[in-house]
Amino acid sequence: MRRAPRHGMNEPIGRRRWAIAEGWIPSGSTGPAPQMTSHETASILNVSDADAHVEITIFFEDRDPAGPYRITVPARRTVHQRFNDLRDPEAIPRDTPYASLIESDLPIIVQHTRLDSRQAENALLSTIAFAAEE
Amino acid sequence: MRRAPRHGMNEPIGRRRWAIAEGWIPSGSTGPAPQMTSHETASILNVSDADAHVEITIFFEDRDPAGPYRITVPARRTVHQRFNDLRDPEAIPRDTPYASLIESDLPIIVQHTRLDSRQAENALLSTIAFAAEE
Amino acid sequence: MRRAPRHGMNEPIGRRRWAIAEGWIPSGSTGPAPQMTSHETASILNVSDADAHVEITIFFEDRDPAGPYRITVPARRTVHQRFNDLRDPEAIPRDTPYASLIESDLPIIVQHTRLDSRQAENALLSTIAFAAEE
Amino acid sequence: MRRAPRHGMNEPIGRRRWAIAEGWIPSGSTGPAPQMTSHETASILNVSDADAHVEITIFFEDRDPAGPYRITVPARRTVHQRFNDLRDPEAIPRDTPYASLIESDLPIIVQHTRLDSRQAENALLSTIAFAAEE
Repeated sequence: MRRAPRHGMNEPIGRRRWAIAEGWIPSGSTGPAPQMTSHETASILNVSDADAHVEITIFFEDRDPAGPYRITVPARRTVHQRFNDLRDPEAIPRDTPYASLIESDLPIIVQHTRLDSRQAENALLSTIAFAAEE
Repeated sequence: MRRAPRHGMNEPIGRRRWAIAEGWIPSGSTGPAPQMTSHETASILNVSDADAHVEITIFFEDRDPAGPYRITVPARRTVHQRFNDLRDPEAIPRDTPYASLIESDLPIIVQHTRLDSRQAENALLSTIAFAAEE
Repeated sequence: MRRAPRHGMNEPIGRRRWAIAEGWIPSGSTGPAPQMTSHETASILNVSDADAHVEITIFFEDRDPAGPYRITVPARRTVHQRFNDLRDPEAIPRDTPYASLIESDLPIIVQHTRLDSRQAENALLSTIAFAAEE
Repeated sequence: MRRAPRHGMNEPIGRRRWAIAEGWIPSGSTGPAPQMTSHETASILNVSDADAHVEITIFFEDRDPAGPYRITVPARRTVHQRFNDLRDPEAIPRDTPYASLIESDLPIIVQHTRLDSRQAENALLSTIAFAAEE
């Protein structure tokens, strides 16, 4: 007989503001598209019972920020958003350093992953984003 | 003669609620099984003197969450749990984005690692999970 | 009709003091320079409306620290600073373990990335830096 | 004319207790030793003006913990400690999941890195360790 912890199953988990300082979408790829296409992803998790409305702002080295890009993360769902696929209000340029600010009306969790397939074998990186205090 | 710090050797370390926003088990592998099989792992550490009862819930992009998956991390032990090996109540589909919520009745530490061996050379990523405030 | 969250768009995000314990610039590279040159980068994001003045101090295993290296991260910009390119007051030696302390007069976000291209295929790692409490 | 921030240059940065849930030293390697030998490293930074006395305890899946392993991180120095090189009180077995608890008498910063060179091209991972509240 074991205990069922389930502490706080209904409590929110996460933060409303996140930042990812590292960003770079390589222009080249090897391997079959789209799985092996070089890309950067913000993986977002919303464990709450309501939809989260998320805005992403992209910062650059030598121009004003782009965005906001708006996405919805439905209640009790995850969205793995490729930065490559952001189009509105503008596409993110390749081979260009950028950073991102991710703001939500509900607590979410954000993780950053890059697949770099410019060379024959892929490189993968992932890191938790920086969560602002609330 | 050096000092023995041992501050808080008996104090708990960790948190009770963790989240990993990034999840993906590749369906393909190269190299000898099982070490070189593509997999995702949640490495869990319990430094306390009692067993920790852990529940994992898996979130998807387009369906309701799966779980809870129940595992026990014994007192003063680590468990490196492959998501590939979770079977009850259901296996986690391959090539499908997911995220996970990890809840425990005692403080634990959680780290996330993926070995991707779809191509000839492996890619490895690891990141600390997000820890909820308590 | 969706809500525009924009909570705190004008609030600062980040911290003033960061540390990266891991540092190593490989001396060898393969692939076209400079993109594929082995390097370590501190990606810094400043979302505030004023320029951030940043000082980097480099720590070694067997000698006194080097620095400070001074860089400016303009308002609402990111700088992806390669440690390879730091020259004043001195270059950082290759194949030598180091660590870094990054201090700013305004809140910033810092992430650490290494591209290791000593062998034919690159390895990539990235991790959020450690943020001091304020 | 720019400001010299130097806020808190003499304030401690870091925490006294850290944990790394993921650990695995591969038994095989390719490439020249020792740089390309598969290894796991705890990179530790001590920015304070006094030596830090550090104790590492290693946790396993199926036996009692090993240690403590004692190392000194001198004032204003970093130590990149390979787990492969820990010998006293016992070597860490290869191909075995483990986790580590790192305790210091002064605040330090800890980062975890693995070089996996079992296959022809290396895989690298790195993540910040989990810092206990104080």
